[in-house]
Amino acid sequence: MSNYPEFEDISTVACIGAGTIGGGWAAYFLSRGLAVRVWDPAPDAEVKLRRLIDAAWPALTTLGLAKNASKDNFTVHTDLDEAVAGVGFVQESAPEDLTLKQELLARVAAAVASNVVVGSSTSGYGMTEMAQAAADPSRLVVGHPFNPPYLIPLVEVVGGEQTDPQATSWASGWYEYIGKSVITMDREVPGFIANRLQEALWREALHMVDNGEATVEQIDTAITDGPGLRWPLQGPMLTFHLAGGEGGMAHMLDHFGPSLKSPWTRLDAPELTTKLRQDVIDGCDIEANGRSFTDLIAQRDAAIIAVRQVVDGIRTPTGARQE
Amino acid sequence: MSNYPEFEDISTVACIGAGTIGGGWAAYFLSRGLAVRVWDPAPDAEVKLRRLIDAAWPALTTLGLAKNASKDNFTVHTDLDEAVAGVGFVQESAPEDLTLKQELLARVAAAVASNVVVGSSTSGYGMTEMAQAAADPSRLVVGHPFNPPYLIPLVEVVGGEQTDPQATSWASGWYEYIGKSVITMDREVPGFIANRLQEALWREALHMVDNGEATVEQIDTAITDGPGLRWPLQGPMLTFHLAGGEGGMAHMLDHFGPSLKSPWTRLDAPELTTKLRQDVIDGCDIEANGRSFTDLIAQRDAAIIAVRQVVDGIRTPTGARQE
Repeated sequence: MSNYPEFEDISTVACIGAGTIGGGWAAYFLSRGLAVRVWDPAPDAEVKLRRLIDAAWPALTTLGLAKNASKDNFTVHTDLDEAVAGVGFVQESAPEDLTLKQELLARVAAAVASNVVVGSSTSGYGMTEMAQAAADPSRLVVGHPFNPPYLIPLVEVVGGEQTDPQATSWASGWYEYIGKSVITMDREVPGFIANRLQEALWREALHMVDNGEATVEQIDTAITDGPGLRWPLQGPMLTFHLAGGEGGMAHMLDHFGPSLKSPWTRLDAPELTTKLRQDVIDGCDIEANGRSFTDLIAQRDAAIIAVRQVVDGIRTPTGARQE
Repeated sequence: MSNYPEFEDISTVACIGAGTIGGGWAAYFLSRGLAVRVWDPAPDAEVKLRRLIDAAWPALTTLGLAKNASKDNFTVHTDLDEAVAGVGFVQESAPEDLTLKQELLARVAAAVASNVVVGSSTSGYGMTEMAQAAADPSRLVVGHPFNPPYLIPLVEVVGGEQTDPQATSWASGWYEYIGKSVITMDREVPGFIANRLQEALWREALHMVDNGEATVEQIDTAITDGPGLRWPLQGPMLTFHLAGGEGGMAHMLDHFGPSLKSPWTRLDAPELTTKLRQDVIDGCDIEANGRSFTDLIAQRDAAIIAVRQVVDGIRTPTGARQE
């Protein structure tokens, strides 16, 4: 990776597109003490961007600013070459339009220095597809954030077929260096990981509304007042690991495996093969990382209580609980 | 509903089964100032139950005890008639075995006073099926909690074909009266609502592991560090409502409707008919309940920040953030 910049040498980055996502990235980069050069052709881009950064800054301050972070440390450009001049990294967040992305990424790839990686915020396209117009697609990588990018830590990183694997690793390292939680995928999957999971839930929810089985409000309450309270600390896999009691995920799969055949959603489950069973059990053990069930349960309960108090306080700002 | 007890007149309830769920219910009822009569045939039931209640009590104290609540205000019985004598409500939480539930619910229905409602903690069976052995199934209702029942507010209520609709309404009112968040379903759907949604996500996750598209850890990280941070305050529907910008859910459906045809999960989406589109938009407006987008976004961001701080504090108890 000697080719690519050292993380600590990067002082300036570029944001291509200053909408909700691109502007959110700009605010985040500023909070990490970086200078940001923003390209956006809209005449009101700078005014809107300043408003977005001003709105985000108190939250970023609460979460902790890097030394020298300044919310004014950005410039807005309408010339692409000017915007990316001298930057150590580029984040592209143009509208979700394939032709537009292809054309823009080709221009950006041609304009940046030859060792600069370009991350794309696309929420669904693969880089193989998006890089098709680029003369040199080797440093084009997907770096998919979640809205708002200055508050949600997750970034999904995946290269295209023509991406240099070292560029993908560099991008993952860079996002981690600036404080993001990174998932690096080794292949392109439509919707990546988080959106695939969100979308499964969303599609089942739409079916339920469509069939009059649940209202929109019931669906949201089912999550906010139920499993949603567990998920900020422990994901769906670890949640089921704990639901299995001391037997953990192995017990869970052996006991509830047969119900995978039941019509509990409109999505058929995969065959619970010996390999799949073992992969899931092993994954839970890796995640538990030596913590006992007692530890995990204590952490879960502490999180649920604290999250409930937080959420109740926001729902009922006067502070009085309803019950 | 004159038939059924007044909520405020109920001072004693029965718990049938004292495992993780039944014991969790017992702890919750005690925290609401009720006396609890527990039936469980296991010789070590009382010892295990006392341990569970002791472990739950600090959490319940943090969330707020009712006046006169005492963690010792329970008795354990091996005789069913004795256990349900004089109680105003029964919560059944026997193991998830259909024949066992059918037999037990028939016995409980015959043993309780003729105006007492019996809620079942089943996570998947419908009451129509479970009530088949009961001479009088009219007061048998599903009241499905989430683990741990003393911390997660959600209870899903749904009657069977032979359940008195007034018994179902009474059960919903009762659970709300004791501080639960209640979803009342007007028909039986396998998995009710929350488990159907959880299960859709779980099945898609198992497919991804099965196909080597994601590891167990990546799936959990995708939720805990991504959408999971939004869901304790705003469910998946309201989340997408906000993702649509000022155009809200209508913009979201019109803009991303076509992607419902894409293979973003293994579950096909329903046809986005005019009616479904309108139902979803209307539901979001009802939920927003007059709050502006600015209000909703401010609440979302405040919740994400606070939830992140809570979760970081639990992950890293020394208090130091990693980034």
